[in-house]
Amino acid sequence: MPITLKELADFCGARIKGGDLSIAIHSAADITSANHGQVTQLTNSRYARHIKNSAASACIIAEDFNAEDVPETMALLICADPEISFIRAVELLHPARNYNRQIAPQAVLETGVTLGNDLYVGPYAVISENAHIGDGSEIHAGAYIGKNTKLGKNCRIYPYAVIYDDVVIGDNVIIHSGAIIGADGFGYKFRNNEHVKVPQVGNVVIEDNVEIGANTCIDRGALGSTLIGAGSKIDNLVQIGHNNKVGKNVIMCGLTGVSGSCNIEDYAILAGSSGIADHVTIGRGAVVMARSGVAGDIEAGTQVFGSPAKDKKTAYKEQIAISKLPELLKRVKMLEEKIQDLKKDA
Amino acid sequence: MPITLKELADFCGARIKGGDLSIAIHSAADITSANHGQVTQLTNSRYARHIKNSAASACIIAEDFNAEDVPETMALLICADPEISFIRAVELLHPARNYNRQIAPQAVLETGVTLGNDLYVGPYAVISENAHIGDGSEIHAGAYIGKNTKLGKNCRIYPYAVIYDDVVIGDNVIIHSGAIIGADGFGYKFRNNEHVKVPQVGNVVIEDNVEIGANTCIDRGALGSTLIGAGSKIDNLVQIGHNNKVGKNVIMCGLTGVSGSCNIEDYAILAGSSGIADHVTIGRGAVVMARSGVAGDIEAGTQVFGSPAKDKKTAYKEQIAISKLPELLKRVKMLEEKIQDLKKDA
Amino acid sequence: MPITLKELADFCGARIKGGDLSIAIHSAADITSANHGQVTQLTNSRYARHIKNSAASACIIAEDFNAEDVPETMALLICADPEISFIRAVELLHPARNYNRQIAPQAVLETGVTLGNDLYVGPYAVISENAHIGDGSEIHAGAYIGKNTKLGKNCRIYPYAVIYDDVVIGDNVIIHSGAIIGADGFGYKFRNNEHVKVPQVGNVVIEDNVEIGANTCIDRGALGSTLIGAGSKIDNLVQIGHNNKVGKNVIMCGLTGVSGSCNIEDYAILAGSSGIADHVTIGRGAVVMARSGVAGDIEAGTQVFGSPAKDKKTAYKEQIAISKLPELLKRVKMLEEKIQDLKKDA
Repeated sequence: MPITLKELADFCGARIKGGDLSIAIHSAADITSANHGQVTQLTNSRYARHIKNSAASACIIAEDFNAEDVPETMALLICADPEISFIRAVELLHPARNYNRQIAPQAVLETGVTLGNDLYVGPYAVISENAHIGDGSEIHAGAYIGKNTKLGKNCRIYPYAVIYDDVVIGDNVIIHSGAIIGADGFGYKFRNNEHVKVPQVGNVVIEDNVEIGANTCIDRGALGSTLIGAGSKIDNLVQIGHNNKVGKNVIMCGLTGVSGSCNIEDYAILAGSSGIADHVTIGRGAVVMARSGVAGDIEAGTQVFGSPAKDKKTAYKEQIAISKLPELLKRVKMLEEKIQDLKKDA
Repeated sequence: MPITLKELADFCGARIKGGDLSIAIHSAADITSANHGQVTQLTNSRYARHIKNSAASACIIAEDFNAEDVPETMALLICADPEISFIRAVELLHPARNYNRQIAPQAVLETGVTLGNDLYVGPYAVISENAHIGDGSEIHAGAYIGKNTKLGKNCRIYPYAVIYDDVVIGDNVIIHSGAIIGADGFGYKFRNNEHVKVPQVGNVVIEDNVEIGANTCIDRGALGSTLIGAGSKIDNLVQIGHNNKVGKNVIMCGLTGVSGSCNIEDYAILAGSSGIADHVTIGRGAVVMARSGVAGDIEAGTQVFGSPAKDKKTAYKEQIAISKLPELLKRVKMLEEKIQDLKKDA
Repeated sequence: MPITLKELADFCGARIKGGDLSIAIHSAADITSANHGQVTQLTNSRYARHIKNSAASACIIAEDFNAEDVPETMALLICADPEISFIRAVELLHPARNYNRQIAPQAVLETGVTLGNDLYVGPYAVISENAHIGDGSEIHAGAYIGKNTKLGKNCRIYPYAVIYDDVVIGDNVIIHSGAIIGADGFGYKFRNNEHVKVPQVGNVVIEDNVEIGANTCIDRGALGSTLIGAGSKIDNLVQIGHNNKVGKNVIMCGLTGVSGSCNIEDYAILAGSSGIADHVTIGRGAVVMARSGVAGDIEAGTQVFGSPAKDKKTAYKEQIAISKLPELLKRVKMLEEKIQDLKKDA
């Protein structure tokens, strides 16, 4: 669905500088690959050098971005918030696939299911007893919705995501394929040389606007709920154990693990492959850097690195010191020799 | 299914202290949230302070637990093993979902399949040629059972778990959704600048009473079997490569990886996000602490930490030493200056 | 399908030394377990001690391998490249399961799908609008092929692998169960205290001869493609973020994470549980050792270890130095005391 440059600029609320107003823009691309008929963005000075060779017909850019050598064929679309304007332009030019609002004949709807309006339910989806699906939601092929599970409005559950029984999900939640929501937490008591399973009879509560990546696992509470707060975004292959309380607008990157009964407060960021021991609080807005392992509480607003994780500055200082350690060993040996000599002299 | 306090105490073999014998107990909850009509437990002194404000009608507790300020409305149920009694109480009050013993019409049973009695087979489950399912087992919606695979009695295979061909599974095994049992091991030989695939024609053998978490992968042997011993419990998102021999009652926590041909002996514990290089033996009862990476054999009964992993005490000593390292650099510099001065003086 | 020893030797182009030419060989096994009627290999001196007790009827071995105490019942099959000959022997004796070339009646083929010849499509597989499946490919039970996705010839897509829309896959590609190809990349912009989703409208391109392990995730590009080069082999539970460019014949082991927009050049090896920060280049043939975390570019041909990863030699030197650090602290304390004494004396 191509639109003219002028239409795109109006859509973005952009001021146009240069270029051809009537040219058709059909898609968006990165500045390193954008071509004639495409719109790109330039918001990171690291990429500024690419503009002079770009064949893009339009570039969304900030007023104060000092772009040099802009090609004559490129219109600058000057926006107050170019990153957001570019997002909106991409959404306009690359509209999301529209699924017909229908229930596939191969879907299974068990007894007591209540369905909102305007649903898409794909083939082989299974919606178990007494589940509820809110208006406008999409349950894609083969997705499994457990007994008594409640799903809000305008959710998208991708193929083969599995939501166990009793899960409560808000509105506008996206769950990618292979994500498993509500499997049993990992709890045992050791008796008579065996591991006795602790029943996992709680559930998972996911608030509005959460996105959950592919093959991520969120375990149900042993008793009570595992909670994912509104607006939190969870990447692929993340493990969230039972009874964790994840706050609002938290970010968790790929391959991160949160063991159990933790408080991950609002706006915290857990970078890739990080891990949190059980019963730990990660304070509001704290950042656990990539590959860090946290065993104790982290104060709000701090950044930690390493395993065991420490305040970022401390950790960096130690890293620098370690790099000097082999040399330090030699220096100490030399000192010992010098002292020996001095003592002999004395 | 509420029961009276008296019935619950009898069920647990508990001695009652205080409370109202006729009150109805309908569910269980943690001590921080339990309310009227609920039973809780107090087994960890860390939570003792919560008892005085708890509205729980009953609390399972040990004889010698020194609970102070017990509310008048709370009955103490004094048990010899309160953790196990609480587990049994939770199972009683929150019974597991009961699946009708039936084969869904949408299940596919290929030729030569043999089925035990009292099975539940959910919609879209696929049971391949010559597979066997033992009495009382549940194959949930969309679970896939490969050719020649044998499943014992009273197993529960959750939706969309995938069990490849030739896998042998014992009794009372639980496999959560998204677990992949028997995919090819990761083996190649490098020839003529390409990776030549080593055929993976072995299988996986899982003994009785094993539980396997969501999205965990256990690869088949290249030749011979990958083995998971009886009673072992494996968390979510664990990777177990080909030809590993995992002993009995082993614990593996989330996001752990075991590369290949390892011996993980009985009662070993691999904590979260730990990793084991190939051909390594982890001795009986050894503990690999969280995020540790093991490249050589670990003796029975030892605990190791770090990457590369070392004896826990050594590793902790080194961690403390590292925290003193930036200061040490300054101290050595000062020593060098002092020596310089002394030499001048000499 | 047993064959005679003579036939096996001819098949392998092997010279026979000892043994009984007419004996039937029915299967292959490791040297530690191989029995009468089985062929094994001996290519690693670590296993040489097992030959004398082996009941294997044949052993594939190199000309120059100095095997001692070969049992009289064992024929040596002397090959120029015994590892490859053994692979071929295993393939011959343990032929891969043959799926009937048919489309299961329970498969869903949406409109506009184009199918090659000689396909196997399993029950409950879903092939979405306008997808193309090349000759000889297998789409196993419940596998999901997205809209517009193109699959080459002789691919094998295992049960419940999910391939999102617009993915392009070459020939001879194997994708194991639970792998998710083309889910949204993890991209957000933070505005007004919320995370605004960056549309992920690119795709994934997978070239010929790639193998992708169980439950591995490869995200689609935000704009443009995430690329997996020909011949690359990816283990289970690997996370490959959006817009990564993975070269040819790259190896990635289990639980590895590559965040986004990285260049992983040809023949690079990412060992188990390693991680790569975004926008990083891993040079041709470079090796990232197990559990290492890479935050900056790595030169071609180098090996790095640790988190943060350093040149292997440097990292090892530092590891050795750390092991001496607790002792070093004592030595420095002693030096300080000696200096103090010397100053007193002075």
